[in-house]
This record gives sequence, structure tokens and C-alpha cells, in this order.
Amino acid sequence: MPELRKDPVTGRWVIIATERRKRPSDFRVDPLSALGRERCPFCAGHEGLTPPEICAYRPNGSGRDTPGWDLRVVPNKFPALKVEGGLDREGDGMYDRMNGIGAHEVIIETPDHDRQLATMSEQEIERVLCAYRDRIVDLKQDRRFRYILVFKNHGAAAGATLEHAHSQLIALPIVPDFVREEVDGARRHFAEKERCVFCDMLRQELVDGRRVIQENADIVAIAPYAPRLPFETWLLPRRHASRFEDAPRHEIESLARLLKAVLGRINRALESPAYNLILHSAPFSEDTSEFYHWHLELMPKLTKVAGFEWGTGFYINPTSPEEAAKVLRAVPL
Amino acid sequence: MPELRKDPVTGRWVIIATERRKRPSDFRVDPLSALGRERCPFCAGHEGLTPPEICAYRPNGSGRDTPGWDLRVVPNKFPALKVEGGLDREGDGMYDRMNGIGAHEVIIETPDHDRQLATMSEQEIERVLCAYRDRIVDLKQDRRFRYILVFKNHGAAAGATLEHAHSQLIALPIVPDFVREEVDGARRHFAEKERCVFCDMLRQELVDGRRVIQENADIVAIAPYAPRLPFETWLLPRRHASRFEDAPRHEIESLARLLKAVLGRINRALESPAYNLILHSAPFSEDTSEFYHWHLELMPKLTKVAGFEWGTGFYINPTSPEEAAKVLRAVPL
Repeated sequence: MPELRKDPVTGRWVIIATERRKRPSDFRVDPLSALGRERCPFCAGHEGLTPPEICAYRPNGSGRDTPGWDLRVVPNKFPALKVEGGLDREGDGMYDRMNGIGAHEVIIETPDHDRQLATMSEQEIERVLCAYRDRIVDLKQDRRFRYILVFKNHGAAAGATLEHAHSQLIALPIVPDFVREEVDGARRHFAEKERCVFCDMLRQELVDGRRVIQENADIVAIAPYAPRLPFETWLLPRRHASRFEDAPRHEIESLARLLKAVLGRINRALESPAYNLILHSAPFSEDTSEFYHWHLELMPKLTKVAGFEWGTGFYINPTSPEEAAKVLRAVPL
Repeated sequence: MPELRKDPVTGRWVIIATERRKRPSDFRVDPLSALGRERCPFCAGHEGLTPPEICAYRPNGSGRDTPGWDLRVVPNKFPALKVEGGLDREGDGMYDRMNGIGAHEVIIETPDHDRQLATMSEQEIERVLCAYRDRIVDLKQDRRFRYILVFKNHGAAAGATLEHAHSQLIALPIVPDFVREEVDGARRHFAEKERCVFCDMLRQELVDGRRVIQENADIVAIAPYAPRLPFETWLLPRRHASRFEDAPRHEIESLARLLKAVLGRINRALESPAYNLILHSAPFSEDTSEFYHWHLELMPKLTKVAGFEWGTGFYINPTSPEEAAKVLRAVPL
């Protein structure tokens, strides 16, 4: 059974998922594409290579775990958390732990092995975002969960182990540290000013313009003022809202359109780098509606000089956001 | 001029050091050993390839910037921060910034291109640790600095760009986030219990024994209860003390001895992985002497599945600390 453990100094929770990989020799990871298309568990026709599907978008009404789907959600075959059981929160002397209860799902974005998010149509990207929403709405009914993490690792340098386009979702009985910090920071700003810090940021960025990459009716893509990584990009809705899953259809459409454009700019400017895409949305267990503002964070993985940053969370970024935004704005689309 | 910028939501400071690397095409980093021994700036006889030395240990009294040294400290040729100038703290609308004032130094651990920390003698390792101490004592006199970060990237996967053994030091006008969290957590524990959280941890670990890797008269090496990475190892002094630079000679000796032993175990168990070594010591600008406890954190870089963790600080660890400690204890030395 995986475990959630809390560091007694910082309060940081980690998942200890020993069933995923065990022995020292197991750390020699296979290169990304070693599996090949023939044995790819995410390709149409290979449905038997994944656990039974949780849901799928099947426009022609084909049967479960058979071809004919546009998008398919399955449990992760090597889950970091288990769905069955109780949390069994307990102390171990001065330490705190609980069972690693949660969901770990894979959103297979397309049946086509060679299609990547950046080259999908806007409708296809919108479908992926709708799958994020549908899974969150379903899983938040489970009262054991306090947060659902939706993210995408694209490329080996970003941690992807399969090249076939997919996103992941982890439903957690705790609020992870980086969300906690954001929520607490936004709460402090609101307590002082009675305004959302993200709305304030959007207002200033739109007036200033130097860090705006692209915008449409509903969504604005910016290089944030204090980016951790070169070309870090945030996509924020103009309209204040704390939960992604409550976004109206037109915002999801606009987000799909802008995400496609931004990924296109990044791929052209930076030779299609690996990246992580991370959805930041409000925790379920508290009311953050006045001050939290959902958004997507896109982190290209361009630099290897990250060993130190990785262990400390302290970042040295060689590219200013003003320069990054300028480079990305200048890409011909 | 590099800049320090603060994220308005989380309060996280980042260094924007645009002079280090500029254009998108510059992100194709050279492999680690591309430079070769002939052009290695850290080798004896190549002193002219570095900026003029800050200090060196020269047992035979050889001249500055000439061979004959055992250990040499030089400014980083591509510094993330600049020593000259004022902080010029200022707002930019809702944002906070200051000039990137600080020191960025390289501690060349040995004149020998092929010698690595793990294979040095205990005396040589002690010399490296003494250099850490000497530089901290010197730099903390500069009232602009609030924290000195001492760290070592070993191996390309850990962010090293030169293979010749070296450590780095960054003196900062701010306290980095990860230190802030530790200090605040330790302060909370002390406020509640009037005990140091690290001392409590050591007591429990020594009684429990499952996560103890090795110990000697002054220092204990443990796999922490909630490790972020497989085989993460902390080396803590038994005696409570907040500042590494005040450690007495015998503790530095004991630390050198245990560090050598632990690196030997890790190298044998895990085929000499890349790693980061990070010194955690008290900030200068506040009195943390009752509740903070200096230590070394050693983070082997074994897994590539870190893209996501990198962006969020949320870790999924496939190896329990009990298993890691057991594997490391079992290594024949």
C-alpha cells in the first residue's frame, strides 16, 4: 500500500509508492520510445494492454475497451496511489502518515500514436480539456479527496515514459505544498486588499504589455514576472473564477485555442522542447472562491542546470520573462 | 545586472540572470566532459583560465594564481549574482524586485582532474568542508547578505557542467524559500514544545534504527522519514547547533569521515549516481539558535520521472527510506 508521509520540519507531504519500482538496479530507466508503436498500450487496437477503461469519448458508440474512441481514460497501470481503502491517518512517534488512498488515471488524448497536443486541432485540444473537467467533476464526489492534480509530461526530459500523447490525474487526500502556498498567498493578498492577486496581476500585465505573449476573448497567456524556468508561461482566464471545472464552454474553447497557439510558438521558437503542463485549480475542502484564480502553467524543460533547483526549489533563470515573451510574440504563426 | 524578483502570489524569490545565457539556441547544453582535461579551467597549471582567486590552500606557499595549491576558491566566471553595487529594492506596480547583488564562488576541491569527493581521503574532504566554513565566515561580514547557499552538483544529471570536482557558494540578500520553510517549521515546533524538531527527529531515529544509515561520535546519517527522492540522505550533528560555520574541528572531521563513508555506500549500491549536496545552515539575519539545526542533504539523482516534481515541488518517491537505509547499510565497505 502506498503511503503519504509528512516531513515534520516543513510540513511537506510526499507519496512513498514502493510498488512502482523497487530495486536499485531498476533505476536505469528505458529511453522514451523503447516500447515502439507495436507494443504501445495507448494505441487504438491495444485496449487490452491497459486496465479496463474508466470512460471514453466514443462518437460512434463502440463498446468499452475496443477501438472507435477519440479519447480514453484508464487507471494508471503503476499507480502512485490506490483507490480502495480508508485513509487510516496515524502517528509514528513524532511523524504523521496516512494510507496512499487516491486515484491515479491516464487520459489518453488521441488514438493516434503520432499526434501530439500541439499539432491537434482546436476541437481535439478542447476534448482533452473537457476530459480534465469531466474527471474532476466525477472524482470530487469522493469525500476522501481534497485536491485533484491534472498534469501532462511531454517528452523524456519532462518525465514522460511513453511517447503516445497523454495527461495524468492524481486525486489526493491532502492539498500539495505548492497549491497550499499559492492558496495561502492569494488569501493574504485578499485579506489586505479585498482583491484577487491574479486579477491584479492580469490588469497590470495587460496595461504593461511586455510580458503578454498572446490573448483572446477569454484567456491571456503571459510570461510571469518571477518565472522559475526560461519561457515559463501561464494561461489565465480574464474572468475571476477559482475552479477550472466550473468554467463555461466558451472559456474552455478559448483556452484550447490559446494553448494551441502558445504551444505552436514555443515549438517554433525552441525546437519543440519537452514540457510539463500543470493545471492549478482550487482545493475542494475550503472556500477559496473570492481569492483563488484557476490557471494553467506551462513549463518548458530547456536547461539541464536544474539539479540544484530540483532539490531546493530555489531557481536561477537565465531568461527574463520580457525577453521570453518578446521571442514568443515574434514567432510567425 | 542580474535581478531578484518576487512572485506576488507565493512570495517565492527567483534570480533572473540574463547574462549567463541568452538566446533560444543557447539552450543546447554541451555534454559534461566536452571540455576535456586540456582545457579544464579547474586543473593545476590552468589558473589563468579562471578569474583571479579569492583564496587558496597552499601548503608550500606558492604564489597566487599559480600551481601548488590543494584547494582553490575563485569567482564563478558566469555569476548568477554580482558583488558590486547596492540592492536598490523597488516596486514595479504590484511586483517587488532588487538588484541581483551577491557573491557566486566556485570551490575547486582538488587540483587533480580525476579525483572525486567520494574517493578523496578524509583529510581532503575535511579541507573542502573547511573551505565552506572559511568562505561563510568571510562573506557573512557583508551586511547586504542574509543567506549563504553552499552546494555541490556532481554529474551532468545533477546540473554539473564541468567534471572536475567543485562546489559552489551563492551569497544572497534574501533567504531562499526552502530555507524559509524549514526555519519557520522549526520555529513552530519550538514554540509548541520548546524543543528542536531536528533533535527530536534524531532521538526518535536513533531509538527506532530503521532509517539510520551510519553514525559516528558526532554525526548521524539517516534516510529522512518523508524523503522527496530515492536514497535521499541527511547528515546531522548530534549536538544541537544552528550554524555550520561555528562547528568545532572534531565535528567537521567526523562529518568528513561520515560523508566519505556514505558516498562510498551510495556509489557501490547505486553505480555512482549523479547527486546534489546541499548545506542547510541558519540565516544570518535572525536568531534561530534555539530551534534550527544545521545539516547536509544529499540527493542522488536516480530517476528521470521528475519533470512534474520539478515544477510543483510535489514528490512521488518509489523507494521507502527504510528500504534505502537497509540497502545502504548492507553495502560492504
